[in-house]
Amino acid sequence: MAEHTLKRFDEELERLSSTISEMGGLAETALTQCLVALRQSDSEVAEQVIAADARVDALDIAVQEQTVKLLALRQPMAVDLRVILSSIKIAAALERIADYAKNTAKRTIVLNSVTAPPAAVTGIDRLGRLVRTALKDVLDAFAQGDVTKAHDVWTRDEEIDQVYTGLFRELLTYMMEDPRTITSCTHLLFMAKNIERAGDHVTNIAELVSFRTTGHGFDETRPKGSASLYAAGNAS
Amino acid sequence: MAEHTLKRFDEELERLSSTISEMGGLAETALTQCLVALRQSDSEVAEQVIAADARVDALDIAVQEQTVKLLALRQPMAVDLRVILSSIKIAAALERIADYAKNTAKRTIVLNSVTAPPAAVTGIDRLGRLVRTALKDVLDAFAQGDVTKAHDVWTRDEEIDQVYTGLFRELLTYMMEDPRTITSCTHLLFMAKNIERAGDHVTNIAELVSFRTTGHGFDETRPKGSASLYAAGNAS
Repeated sequence: MAEHTLKRFDEELERLSSTISEMGGLAETALTQCLVALRQSDSEVAEQVIAADARVDALDIAVQEQTVKLLALRQPMAVDLRVILSSIKIAAALERIADYAKNTAKRTIVLNSVTAPPAAVTGIDRLGRLVRTALKDVLDAFAQGDVTKAHDVWTRDEEIDQVYTGLFRELLTYMMEDPRTITSCTHLLFMAKNIERAGDHVTNIAELVSFRTTGHGFDETRPKGSASLYAAGNAS
Repeated sequence: MAEHTLKRFDEELERLSSTISEMGGLAETALTQCLVALRQSDSEVAEQVIAADARVDALDIAVQEQTVKLLALRQPMAVDLRVILSSIKIAAALERIADYAKNTAKRTIVLNSVTAPPAAVTGIDRLGRLVRTALKDVLDAFAQGDVTKAHDVWTRDEEIDQVYTGLFRELLTYMMEDPRTITSCTHLLFMAKNIERAGDHVTNIAELVSFRTTGHGFDETRPKGSASLYAAGNAS
C-alpha cells in the first residue's frame, strides 16, 4: 500500500480518537452540570445541559462517518479493526451518558416546581459524583490506553450499584412517610436510575478500553451489588 | 476480485441478516412472554424470559464477529457498508429490547410478593402489546426491506409515548391514594419505562431499515408525545 495511504489512515485514526475524547469531555461536563443544577435548583444550568447535548449527538454521528472513511481507506488489520469497532461502541456509550445527564437536567427543572426531600437530593448528588469520577478516570484510561486503570474503574461499579440500591430504598420510605413527596420522589427515582445507568455505560467503556488493547474484556464476572428483592431496581 | 470471494461475501451478508432475524424473533418472544408473566403472575414464565436472554446476547456478539469477517473479506462499497454498519446497530437495539423484557420479567417476580393495582397491570399490558406489535411490524419491514412499512412503525411512536405518559400519571395517583401500593407502583413505573424505551428502540430500528435502503432516515422530526410537565417521564 502506498505510504501516503498509510499516513492518511493513521491520521484518520488519530482524528477518531480525538473526536471521542471531545465527546468524553462534553459528557463529563454534562454530568457535572446536571448535578450543579440539582444541588442549586438552577433551571438555567439545567437548560444549558439540555442545549449542549446536540453537540454530543453530532460528534456521535461524526464518529460513525469517520469510521466509514477509515474502513473505505483500507481493509484494516485485526488490531485496527478492534480500535475502529470499539470506537463506535465507546461513542455510543458516551452519547448515552450525555443523554442520561440531559434527562436528569430535564427532571431537575420539573423538580423545581415541587418539594423534594433534601436528603434524597444529597443522595443523588453523592451517586452522581461517584459516576462522574469513574467517567473521568475511564476517559484518562482511554487516552492513555491504560488497561490497569480501566480495570480499577470497572471494579467500582459494585459500589455505585450499592449506593443506588440504598437510595432506591430511601426514596420509597420518603414516599410512604409523606405521600405529598410522591411526585418529586418519582422523578428522583428516575434520576437515580439515569445516573446508575450512566455508571453501567462507564463500566462498558472500561471493558472496551481493555478490548482495544488486549482483544478481550475483564475475565471475572462483572461485580454486582445487592442481590436483594430490590435488586430489580438495579438490573437492566 | 475473484468470483468465489464475491460469492462468499454475499453468503456472509445473508448469514448476517438471518442472525438478526433470529435475534428479532427472540426479542419478540421475550416481550410477549414478559407480558404473559405479568398478566398471569407467573414467575416460572418470567424465569424463562430471564434465562432466554443469554442467547440474544450471544447472537449480538455473533453479529459483531460476522461484521468483522465481512469487513476483512473485502473493502465494502457504500451500500454494503451501510448494510453492515446498520446491522451492528439493529442488533444492539434488539439486544436492548430483550434486556428491557428481561428486566420487566425480573420485576414481575418481585411484584408477585406485593399487591399491585389491577388496573395498572392492565395498563402496562396494553402499552406492552402496542410495542410488541410495532416490533413485529418493524421486523417484517426489515425482512422485506419495506421502507413504507418501517415509516408506518416510526409514526406509531407518538401513540406509544402518549399511552406511557397516561400510565405514568395513573401510577402516581394510585400511590397517592394508597401509600401501601408505593413499592408495587414503583416497580410498575420502571416496567412502563422499560417498555417505552423498548418502543424507542423499535423506532430506531425503523429508521435503520430506511437508512439501509435509502441512505437516510425519515425526514420529518420524530413525532413526540405530550409536552406536558410529565413529559420528562418520557424523555430519554
